[in-house]
Amino acid sequence: MGVSLKDVAQRAGVSVKTVSNVVNDFPHVTPSTRARVQRAIDDLGYRPNLSARHLRKGRTGIIALAVPELGNPYFAEVAGAVIDAAVRHEHTVLLDHTAGRRELENLVSQGFRSHVIDGLILSPIELENEDLVARPAGPPMVLLGERQYDAPYDHIAIDNIAAARTAVRHLLDLGRRRIAFLGARHESERQPAHLRLQGWRAEIEANGMTPPESLVVATDGYGRRDGAVAMAAVLDRGERPDAVFAYNDMMALGAMRTLYERGLRIPEDVAVVGFDDIEEGHYGAVSLTTIAPDKAAIAELAVECLVTRITTPPSPSDEPRRIHPPYRLVVRESTRVRRG
Amino acid sequence: MGVSLKDVAQRAGVSVKTVSNVVNDFPHVTPSTRARVQRAIDDLGYRPNLSARHLRKGRTGIIALAVPELGNPYFAEVAGAVIDAAVRHEHTVLLDHTAGRRELENLVSQGFRSHVIDGLILSPIELENEDLVARPAGPPMVLLGERQYDAPYDHIAIDNIAAARTAVRHLLDLGRRRIAFLGARHESERQPAHLRLQGWRAEIEANGMTPPESLVVATDGYGRRDGAVAMAAVLDRGERPDAVFAYNDMMALGAMRTLYERGLRIPEDVAVVGFDDIEEGHYGAVSLTTIAPDKAAIAELAVECLVTRITTPPSPSDEPRRIHPPYRLVVRESTRVRRG
Repeated sequence: MGVSLKDVAQRAGVSVKTVSNVVNDFPHVTPSTRARVQRAIDDLGYRPNLSARHLRKGRTGIIALAVPELGNPYFAEVAGAVIDAAVRHEHTVLLDHTAGRRELENLVSQGFRSHVIDGLILSPIELENEDLVARPAGPPMVLLGERQYDAPYDHIAIDNIAAARTAVRHLLDLGRRRIAFLGARHESERQPAHLRLQGWRAEIEANGMTPPESLVVATDGYGRRDGAVAMAAVLDRGERPDAVFAYNDMMALGAMRTLYERGLRIPEDVAVVGFDDIEEGHYGAVSLTTIAPDKAAIAELAVECLVTRITTPPSPSDEPRRIHPPYRLVVRESTRVRRG
Repeated sequence: MGVSLKDVAQRAGVSVKTVSNVVNDFPHVTPSTRARVQRAIDDLGYRPNLSARHLRKGRTGIIALAVPELGNPYFAEVAGAVIDAAVRHEHTVLLDHTAGRRELENLVSQGFRSHVIDGLILSPIELENEDLVARPAGPPMVLLGERQYDAPYDHIAIDNIAAARTAVRHLLDLGRRRIAFLGARHESERQPAHLRLQGWRAEIEANGMTPPESLVVATDGYGRRDGAVAMAAVLDRGERPDAVFAYNDMMALGAMRTLYERGLRIPEDVAVVGFDDIEEGHYGAVSLTTIAPDKAAIAELAVECLVTRITTPPSPSDEPRRIHPPYRLVVRESTRVRRG
C-alpha cells in the first residue's frame, strides 16, 4: 500500500514508463532492466493496480461464483478454494448464493450483473437444460457440480457414478447387504442425487443382488436435518438397514444423530458413508467415512477454464470442456468395525 | 427476466416514463397511478435494473464483506445473513476472506478495490487500532466482531464479557468448579478471546473463587483441531477439569472429540459450552450447549448502518455507533446431566 510506480522507478533508477512496461509485461524491455525493476518491486512490496490493467482491456477483473448455500460447509470450502485460485489468476470473486432455487440460478446465469463481472462459475441445483439453452449471450460461464447438461458450457464435476460405486463397494466389502440410500429426489432425472443413486444401484447389481428400493429415501433438501429425518423414517417403518450411504456428509451426520438417539451402534449395527469430506466429519464421537472430491483441483480447474474463456476470443471450433477432477474414498470410524 | 419497462407500461396503461418515475421513487406520480404500476410490476415479476439506479448516483450498489474464514461455519452463516440483508437494502455483496491476517485485513480496510464498492463490512481478527487510525479516506466501513477499537467506525458486536459470564454462570450452577477456558491468546490485550476470557475470570471471581489459571489454554487458531489439541494438552499435564468453556463452537467440538477418545463422558465427567451456535453443534452424539449470538440481527444492523453511511453525507457531529445485538444461552446435552 502507498508504494507508487514512481517509487519503484526511483529505486530501480529507470523511468516510470519502463516500470509500467515491466508491470504490464510488454516485450520491449531488456532482461537486465526487467530484473532490476522486479527487484525494486519486491523490495518495496509494490502491488500493481490490477483493476486498472483489467479496465484497460475492457474487463473488471471480477468473476462471480454462485453456490447454492454458504451454510453448507462443502460449498463454503469450495468457495474458499475458488477465491484462492482466483487470486492466483489475478481476479477477485463476487460470491453469491442461490439457495438452490431455479429462479435465482436463472437470474445469476442470465447475467443480472453482467456489467460488473467478466465471467461466472455456477453450481446449479434446480436449473434445467432448457434454461441453459435459452441463456442469452453474456459473460463466459463455467458449471460446477453433479447436474448433467447438454449445453455449450464447460463443466467441472467428479465422476459421480463411479464415486458412488466406490462407496457402495466399500460397504459390500464389509459384508453389508442392506444398504440404505438417503437423499434421493424423484421429481427429475436430472436432480443432483440421480447419479449417486444410479451408482448405488449399479454396484449392488454388479454384486448379483437386487437393490433394496425400500431403503431409498427421498428428502426435501440436503441438510443435517434432512438426513436425521430420513434415517428416522426408515427405522420407523420397521426397516433395519445395516449400512447407510448418504447423498452428502451433512445428511450422513444427521442420520448418525438419529442412530445415536435410537441407541444403534456405528458402525457395528449400521455403517455410514457420506460424500464431500467436510471437515466436521473428521470429528464427532465417530468420525465419518466419505468420498473426498479434490476441492482444490475443482476450484483451480474452474477458474482456469473461466479465465481462458475470458481471455481467448470464442471460435466456431470451441467444444465445451467436460472435466472430471479426482476423488478418493477416505475410510474413518463410521465403517471401521472394531474386532476382538 | 426479460420483462421490460415497456411491458410494465403496456400492462398498466401508462407511459414508460411514468413507470420509470414509479420505479425511481420520483414524487410527481399520483397514488392511484403508482398503485396501478406497482400491480403491473408485481404481476409481471419485473425487476428494476438496480445497478443503473446506483450508477446514476455515482455508486455501484456493491458492498464488500470481509470475514476471516469461510470454512468457519459461524462466518459462513453470518455471510449468508449479510447477503440476504443486502438484498433487502438493494445491494449485492462482494465477499472476501482475510484468513484473519493483519496484512490482508489492512489491504481490505484500506480499500484495494474501493473503485468497485460503495462500502465495506469487515470482521477483523489481527487488525490493530493503529491500522484503523491510519486508514486513508475511503468508502464507509462498519466493523463486526469482538475486537475493540478506539476508532471512528460503527461497530456491531454482542457484549462478549456478559455473554461469557452467562456461559460460566451456567456451569457454576451445575456445580462445576474446575472450568477450563480453551482458546486464549496471550500476545495482545486486544486479541479476540480477551473479552471472553475476562468474562470467565469475572464470573468465577463473583462466585468467591480464584480463577484456575492452569486451566486456561492458549491456542494458535480457533478451529476444531485447535480445540482437540488444547483439550489433550490439559489432560496430558494431569489436570482434570469438570467443565470446558471454549472460545467458539468449533473448538468445543474439537475438545469433545478428544474427550470421546479419552473415554470421558460428556457431560457427566466434563460438561462443555461453546460459543456461536453453529448448526453442527445441534447434531453429534452429544449436542452442544452454546451462546447463540443473533446472527440475523447482526447482519441486518451491519447492512443498515453501512447503507446509512453510504447514503447520508458525513457531518461533523457524527459519532461512531456501538451496537450490541442480542444473544442467548442455548442449553443442550453437553451440559444436561441425566439424573436417576
